[in-house]
Amino acid sequence: MAAMFTAVSQRSFHATNVRDFAHFNLRNNVNSFKNISYPLNVRRLRQNDCNSNLLVVNATAAPGHTSQGNESNYDDDNENNRYLKTQVEGLLETIKWDEKGLVVAIAQHIDTGAILMQGFANKDAVSRTLMSCKATFYSRSRSSLWTKGETSSNFINIADVFFDCDRDSIIYLGKPDGPTCHTGMETCYFTAASDFVKNPNVEVKRQPLTSLYSLEDTIYQRKSDLADLNFRKPSWTKKLLDDQKLLCSKIREEANELCQTLEDNEDKSRTASEMADVLYHSMVLLAIKNVKIEEVLEILRARFSKSGIEEKNSRKGKD
Amino acid sequence: MAAMFTAVSQRSFHATNVRDFAHFNLRNNVNSFKNISYPLNVRRLRQNDCNSNLLVVNATAAPGHTSQGNESNYDDDNENNRYLKTQVEGLLETIKWDEKGLVVAIAQHIDTGAILMQGFANKDAVSRTLMSCKATFYSRSRSSLWTKGETSSNFINIADVFFDCDRDSIIYLGKPDGPTCHTGMETCYFTAASDFVKNPNVEVKRQPLTSLYSLEDTIYQRKSDLADLNFRKPSWTKKLLDDQKLLCSKIREEANELCQTLEDNEDKSRTASEMADVLYHSMVLLAIKNVKIEEVLEILRARFSKSGIEEKNSRKGKD
Repeated sequence: MAAMFTAVSQRSFHATNVRDFAHFNLRNNVNSFKNISYPLNVRRLRQNDCNSNLLVVNATAAPGHTSQGNESNYDDDNENNRYLKTQVEGLLETIKWDEKGLVVAIAQHIDTGAILMQGFANKDAVSRTLMSCKATFYSRSRSSLWTKGETSSNFINIADVFFDCDRDSIIYLGKPDGPTCHTGMETCYFTAASDFVKNPNVEVKRQPLTSLYSLEDTIYQRKSDLADLNFRKPSWTKKLLDDQKLLCSKIREEANELCQTLEDNEDKSRTASEMADVLYHSMVLLAIKNVKIEEVLEILRARFSKSGIEEKNSRKGKD
Repeated sequence: MAAMFTAVSQRSFHATNVRDFAHFNLRNNVNSFKNISYPLNVRRLRQNDCNSNLLVVNATAAPGHTSQGNESNYDDDNENNRYLKTQVEGLLETIKWDEKGLVVAIAQHIDTGAILMQGFANKDAVSRTLMSCKATFYSRSRSSLWTKGETSSNFINIADVFFDCDRDSIIYLGKPDGPTCHTGMETCYFTAASDFVKNPNVEVKRQPLTSLYSLEDTIYQRKSDLADLNFRKPSWTKKLLDDQKLLCSKIREEANELCQTLEDNEDKSRTASEMADVLYHSMVLLAIKNVKIEEVLEILRARFSKSGIEEKNSRKGKD
């Protein structure tokens, strides 16, 4: 006996199984999932939209168990779509479209914060983005909607959409499937004014890196310098990359010093400085292991859609 | 005998004294600072622009020392301004201005990556931004230039400007002096589509937080929950916030486990997972000490404008 469950989550939620999903909804007091104590077999689990995180689960009670009638039953999910569309239409009414019916739409990477690209969006583009979770724009040159990724398959999977104070500029916050720029670069922004001003005849491709990624870039640069025997410029980072025993002793030492700022009630500026040490030395280790900070942040994003204790209990090999 | 030194640095450089400045330029092979072995007394140190990081130092040889004639001498710095203006004009020629002579200009926080605001810029606005290091836009409603901060004093201090592949969209990457939005919010984006869709009648103000800041926000939320005796929902974060001995033992343990992934040559997915643990637990400590991750990143940005070993040697109390 199939039954359809529907729930609205508080924020982006990545259900990997219906049990997680059910637990999540229990915590969020979603009626349709209350009191489900019997195991479920999922037939279909589908994220119905990105912004309200409306999720539709098509599931049956597991063999040997009987559905106890706490779930909501739907013939189909048209009802959810209808509800969502009405709400989205209400939202679109509040936006200040320009004389061409457009707003500026900026796609931003949810893990790194990188500005991926900027386009324009009309009512249909924002609506489609909200309903499909794929960043969609309006092409002024082709006078048509286009979903980023429809030809390259590098979609931008939207977690939420934000509006500015004037309601004429929006952010599509999401995770790209691959490089966003048609040139193959991660983002469309790779020409720095400073490089041009220094030498207009040399084309340097460089993304606008914020501090964390600028540090990561520097560390990876040192790693690549290390392989170059002709490049003998001294660097503490190279020393650490080259001496893993030293690096590990530094990471342990800096973590200890960070703790001491709390234990010894030191000034908060000491805490900030020691945290900078922990972060820097750990990132050198990440570079040795070829791990990008983006991967770490993706893990944290997935973890913190659940509560800490639940998440902690769910991981293997942890206390 | 006063002498003027000029140099172009590779990236944003915050000289706190002329000695740092000279060292920096020696590394970057800037002729005017080569072979300066005598101490200098700075009379004036001025960042002449943001993008090429042209810096002007007015200094004299310290008492008891004689200038050895290696420096360049200028009567005034007009020559630098003239050089910069010519380069900037060349750059502006490459931009694809729309039919109104505008491009979209997005201001982004250099430490957090937050999109602060979006406006439009004409040739003069981009030029003024590049020459003054203050984010400057063109107001379409007032038909005039405006520098963000000219009334509020919350300037956005630009480190660099980036152009997209189509040359019709630019990023002003910089550090704001204070909240950017006229409403007092950190950024102009604080309305989430998901909140509106859930309940259009309740205004929720929420910034588009990327993963690191979303985690920080969650931790600070737990900290505030902890003070609320009526709010008894269990949480591992609250447990850590409440038990500093446990927290410190976890930070040391996770740092150790991160090192072990290198020492025991474990899979890189273990490294990413352990780094996530280190980051999360450390950020709980930061929350107890009221330190924001932005402050930590600001420290790292300042440090990594110098080489590691130099920086390391320059810090007190470190090995």
